[in-house]
Amino acid sequence: MTTAARTPQQDRSRATRRRLLEAAVECLAELGWNGSTVTVVAERAGVTRGAAQHHFPTREDLFTAAVEHVTAERLTGGGPGTGELPPPGPARTEAVVELIVRLYTGPLFRAALHLWVAAATEEPLRERIVALENRVGRESHRAALEFLGVDEGAAGVRETVQATMDLARGLGLANLLTDDAARRRGVVRQWSAMLEDALRGHRGD
Amino acid sequence: MTTAARTPQQDRSRATRRRLLEAAVECLAELGWNGSTVTVVAERAGVTRGAAQHHFPTREDLFTAAVEHVTAERLTGGGPGTGELPPPGPARTEAVVELIVRLYTGPLFRAALHLWVAAATEEPLRERIVALENRVGRESHRAALEFLGVDEGAAGVRETVQATMDLARGLGLANLLTDDAARRRGVVRQWSAMLEDALRGHRGD
Repeated sequence: MTTAARTPQQDRSRATRRRLLEAAVECLAELGWNGSTVTVVAERAGVTRGAAQHHFPTREDLFTAAVEHVTAERLTGGGPGTGELPPPGPARTEAVVELIVRLYTGPLFRAALHLWVAAATEEPLRERIVALENRVGRESHRAALEFLGVDEGAAGVRETVQATMDLARGLGLANLLTDDAARRRGVVRQWSAMLEDALRGHRGD
Repeated sequence: MTTAARTPQQDRSRATRRRLLEAAVECLAELGWNGSTVTVVAERAGVTRGAAQHHFPTREDLFTAAVEHVTAERLTGGGPGTGELPPPGPARTEAVVELIVRLYTGPLFRAALHLWVAAATEEPLRERIVALENRVGRESHRAALEFLGVDEGAAGVRETVQATMDLARGLGLANLLTDDAARRRGVVRQWSAMLEDALRGHRGD
């Protein structure tokens, strides 16, 4: 209790919010949209339902914020800095493809997938998710360009990087019901080689 | 009624079954898993609930059979014969990629997506869908090889064709909440060029 007494109210509130967001992503990934209620999330986060509703007035607020928060964390803090990647060339290209594919095959993608599919038939959710998808898509694309060290001014580079994200999304879906890791390794290796061929010469090397 | 009287009982039963399967895919695509009950499908097919249950004892039976039936139809009857495709080369490769991507961006994929995602959190459905996915995956892969006119004996061909299906799946998902056609065109064109580079020399041309 001494620790709590020393924590300013604002910090405690921020910590509660963070626990709720992380619990919301876990619930979505494990239980799907139907099973993920505010009550279930509050319980997992060790927070009262009232406190959860103080932070997120609606179920849509909570889950949209959760997927956005965890995505932003992965994009900024979760991966290596570009300094830790191999120098530009085949090894770096494959490392970046692996990084992107890992983003799309973990619990975060699973949570986002449940949310997207629910949004297809629930109008109030749909609008929120379309806006979220646009923000996340732009951020991920920008991060991929930076990691690959390419400039999208050159013909075809933009589409090649987009194709990489689309491929990763497809691999994420293929991993939903079974562990697809063994097959995926072959696809990632082959894709990395093709991507390297397409990007070589657009990196200033 | 004269027509009905002339139709043998077996033909009528087959026609009913077919109407149910098609209505089931439409319902899934439009209403998602939650909204797709046997009652809703029977109503859309113009069949009594009892008749629907005679053909498909459980909800899982109906929807699994529906996605399988419509997929098989698209793979065999829906596309052009290989004779209608341009001769092997860049134009054919792009036409085949477009064909595959079209399969993954229509109502059938949307229906399958709702079923897959529901299967992630519903155990009895999960097992059926994993088996279905395996059958459909093998069939689609075989059809893609035939259309592209390549042999998967050569190094990397198998993975390249698999990547094409994974990419198409990702493009299908990107098309769920908004019309992604304009962006998709650029990705399809770029991927077709990369695929053609990778397959050239493995076609016996």
